[in-house]
Amino acid sequence: MSGRDLGLGLDLILKLELLQATGSFKPRGAFNRMLSAALPAAGVATASGGNHGAAVAYAARALGVRAEVFCPVPTPVAKTTRIEGYGAVLHRVGAAYDEARLASEARAAETGALIVHAYDQAEVLAGQGTVGLELEQDAPEATHVLVATGGGGLIGGIAAWYAGTPVRIISVEPEGCPTLATALREGRPVPCPVGGVAADSLGARQVGGIMFAVAKDHVAQAVLVTDDAIRDAQRRLWDALRLVAEPGGATALAALTSGAWAPPAGARVAVVLCGSNTDPAKVAG
Amino acid sequence: MSGRDLGLGLDLILKLELLQATGSFKPRGAFNRMLSAALPAAGVATASGGNHGAAVAYAARALGVRAEVFCPVPTPVAKTTRIEGYGAVLHRVGAAYDEARLASEARAAETGALIVHAYDQAEVLAGQGTVGLELEQDAPEATHVLVATGGGGLIGGIAAWYAGTPVRIISVEPEGCPTLATALREGRPVPCPVGGVAADSLGARQVGGIMFAVAKDHVAQAVLVTDDAIRDAQRRLWDALRLVAEPGGATALAALTSGAWAPPAGARVAVVLCGSNTDPAKVAG
Repeated sequence: MSGRDLGLGLDLILKLELLQATGSFKPRGAFNRMLSAALPAAGVATASGGNHGAAVAYAARALGVRAEVFCPVPTPVAKTTRIEGYGAVLHRVGAAYDEARLASEARAAETGALIVHAYDQAEVLAGQGTVGLELEQDAPEATHVLVATGGGGLIGGIAAWYAGTPVRIISVEPEGCPTLATALREGRPVPCPVGGVAADSLGARQVGGIMFAVAKDHVAQAVLVTDDAIRDAQRRLWDALRLVAEPGGATALAALTSGAWAPPAGARVAVVLCGSNTDPAKVAG
Repeated sequence: MSGRDLGLGLDLILKLELLQATGSFKPRGAFNRMLSAALPAAGVATASGGNHGAAVAYAARALGVRAEVFCPVPTPVAKTTRIEGYGAVLHRVGAAYDEARLASEARAAETGALIVHAYDQAEVLAGQGTVGLELEQDAPEATHVLVATGGGGLIGGIAAWYAGTPVRIISVEPEGCPTLATALREGRPVPCPVGGVAADSLGARQVGGIMFAVAKDHVAQAVLVTDDAIRDAQRRLWDALRLVAEPGGATALAALTSGAWAPPAGARVAVVLCGSNTDPAKVAG
């Protein structure tokens, strides 16, 4: 598409994962994990800032198994409504993802449920990586792919798909949750602050170990963007394209629209718009 | 797509004209009209409930000509903002489309501007008919196509495209603006009431003469839906698919979700979602 209406001087390739079932890319990994395992009678358990939980609930309904989903207390209603709407049992625990994760693991130990991790399982990364497969098929001309990073399952899967090709994978992170930028600087996943407008989808405390093993060699760069840049990118997506993106879903675009990342001459840039689970009243003007 | 998340027991083909440039299908006809004529120095003039005006403004900017757009006073800000944002001169005249149309014709007579009619010009119908061309290419299995009707340019173009094929074209109209249902019953375009939640996009006083010549033979049926059914279809599109449709943009789907039209056994139904220019705060639960 022409980037003109977004206020950009270049053409863009947009991957509309915000129109996926459940409103984010997350069913890719959830289905792949659940279809790769023997599903116990207790079903599945997971922890999530919301989008992964909705995807697990959706996949569990499709596969006919029970799901228990642990969300931090501040999870937006747009997300918890989805989780319950797909028939999962919802638990609200803790202030951030990490506490919900511990609760989900304790529950799975008690019931025998299969854990579907939000980002740090090989099957989950491989599932999210199908975004890369489709991008390469649909837009073989892409030279750079911008992806928002929280726990890193999405960018880990995409970077693994493109490993060994000249395509450069760029991580975009809110200043409030700089998970991969910090890990790349420190040489290993380390705990980070969790804050800002995109914390409900990108607010993992640190990137996963599996994604980091991929990212340290196959993510070209990590770029930080401000909350204002994220809100501005949301507004532009609505104004120009009538797409509703949640803050985390607009974060990758924000690197371009704010100028935090400038494409080199001749670049053909693809941007993954990864989620839409927000109150639509918040995206307009 | 599976209609399950929309609460339907059948699979659907959705044509997402609500994601077009300017937020509706209207640039198709506007560009076709303007590229088929010699454009005078005075540029173009038009009247519109909003979506066609935005499309004319967009096309005029792309082609480097002046545009004056006449909208009824109640036109939503989401639409007038677009028109002015694309650089057209906006005039607010009258309570409904018809008064704005008279004002636009008077102005064109004065300046020599080319009239780009919202629906009753052959080039405009032919442009909108490219929706049919694309549908047939993308979904050759479709047996029925549901299209919302106001002035009828969109359904006229689509019905002309499919004329001579077994594909059945179904008009869906709000009870508040039953333009084609009335014309089919009376055997000619006749003035109708203009009211209800979709009046800003479907509130023409009557269908155009050109479309009626097509529709009387090539539109299979006209179905009426209530305002409540339209609002419900908007909510389902947001809840299940994260698509923002304006009332007129959700009207065709409302025929299915309300049961006003029941597909025959074996039907493969395509639904044209034709516009998204509304306040997104109005589409959620």
